[in-house]
Amino acid sequence: MKIIRTTPAMADWSRRLHREGVTIGFVPTMGALHEGHRALIRAARLACDAVVVSIFVNPTQFGPTEDLSNYPRQLRLDQALCRKEGVDAIFAPTVKTMYPVGAQTVVTVPGIARRWEGEARPHHFQGVATVVTKLLSLVQPDKTWFGQKDYQQAALVQQLVKDLNLPGHPIIHPTVREADGLALSSRNVYLSSSERQAAPVLSRALQAGIAAIRAGERNAARIQRHMLRVAATEPLATVEYLAVCDPVTLEPLSQLNRQAVLLGAMRIGRVRLLDNMLTSFRRKP
Amino acid sequence: MKIIRTTPAMADWSRRLHREGVTIGFVPTMGALHEGHRALIRAARLACDAVVVSIFVNPTQFGPTEDLSNYPRQLRLDQALCRKEGVDAIFAPTVKTMYPVGAQTVVTVPGIARRWEGEARPHHFQGVATVVTKLLSLVQPDKTWFGQKDYQQAALVQQLVKDLNLPGHPIIHPTVREADGLALSSRNVYLSSSERQAAPVLSRALQAGIAAIRAGERNAARIQRHMLRVAATEPLATVEYLAVCDPVTLEPLSQLNRQAVLLGAMRIGRVRLLDNMLTSFRRKP
Repeated sequence: MKIIRTTPAMADWSRRLHREGVTIGFVPTMGALHEGHRALIRAARLACDAVVVSIFVNPTQFGPTEDLSNYPRQLRLDQALCRKEGVDAIFAPTVKTMYPVGAQTVVTVPGIARRWEGEARPHHFQGVATVVTKLLSLVQPDKTWFGQKDYQQAALVQQLVKDLNLPGHPIIHPTVREADGLALSSRNVYLSSSERQAAPVLSRALQAGIAAIRAGERNAARIQRHMLRVAATEPLATVEYLAVCDPVTLEPLSQLNRQAVLLGAMRIGRVRLLDNMLTSFRRKP
Repeated sequence: MKIIRTTPAMADWSRRLHREGVTIGFVPTMGALHEGHRALIRAARLACDAVVVSIFVNPTQFGPTEDLSNYPRQLRLDQALCRKEGVDAIFAPTVKTMYPVGAQTVVTVPGIARRWEGEARPHHFQGVATVVTKLLSLVQPDKTWFGQKDYQQAALVQQLVKDLNLPGHPIIHPTVREADGLALSSRNVYLSSSERQAAPVLSRALQAGIAAIRAGERNAARIQRHMLRVAATEPLATVEYLAVCDPVTLEPLSQLNRQAVLLGAMRIGRVRLLDNMLTSFRRKP
């Protein structure tokens, strides 16, 4: 397994493989790899000839008061996981090679970035859109895997790739969960043991929304009330949003029609957790 | 010569050539081709196996009061010129294929776009940066030619390509001029005959700045005064700016050191003309 540290070396690696007709699967990550990432790597491994995983804690997607300096970093463990999964190359660039002096170009996807995480974390999605554009242009993957857990990010990347004609053909892979429903996230390590016990309330709330839809509810406000009722049962949880949205535009729906994504964000103590569930259905129940 | 109308067809054409090891030279234009464009096409023809010229009057780089609807369009003549120069393909997309419903991603290069044309034409460079990103990602050229006449645009594209790791290796080609010094531009057709006679004052003003530098002047304010003095001799001309700048950042210089670009914009009647001249020199004359 090759460890690539600079952008020219990354470009060379891809060019060489493409010249030989090898297809490249790409899994961009911020490291601290868990079973969710492993699922993405396995999907890439199955679909493409070669797999590259990027590990880069991108500073431009963190706000000034966020956890950039404390974000979990464990390159040794991440390398071991990648090697075990048959990854061909890890791209682990320095901040300097990704953002050299004078770098200034910014990519924005204003419609999809406006709400939800975009409101909670100004500039976050601008950082995401910019680094994803850089990575896809550099790696030139045939397919790229994103976890559904960060649904707004995944939807934004799909719009971005379409709008800018970028390579990479993004694929959204279903969220991997703990047995009690908690969506896997590198930030789960921040949870104390009582917080960890409280945390599955987020997926239970979303699940209540899905159950209401399955039972025939099509009114978004009432679906939201089902979710909020479940959230209220957990004293450690503070809801940031529990929303019923269009899966492409992420605009809130009032009446459901064919498909929806339920988006949720909660604080459990000082830890901010995200989750979401997608559903599609006939218009009339 | 192939005429390509849609983005998927453009991507296919490039992919097929690349698979055969053919190098692609790219000349992005807004049509209304003149001798300046012909020089870019010839340079591309010499350097690459295949040449593609895009002809797209990009709406997002025009302001609401600008000449989008009146911008000269002459696809037949442009095709004839391209055919004569041995161009392999023209990419002439519709606005709809470039900006389908829902398209929203925007690329900005805030440092380079801030001054000069950026001040005169808000959002202009955001439109340029976005369409160039789309075109380069789509065409995947080995090399791309830009005219020096739009120097700020060319500098912005170079920064953009570097920052986003885009393909296309942009090359700035020297400005082609009329015998009296007027830089060729598709907008020169708007000049009345008396305006046309007045128009070379812009290149004469810049030339006076270059002459001052050659004579040993290193103080930007004094170089600017030389340029303004020439401009003042032409009653039909209104100076928008005549500036002495760093050729990479486009920030104004106060004292010259090794290299500079002299940037100029004037109105001649209702027509806005741009020009610039680059120079490099020893620090001490």
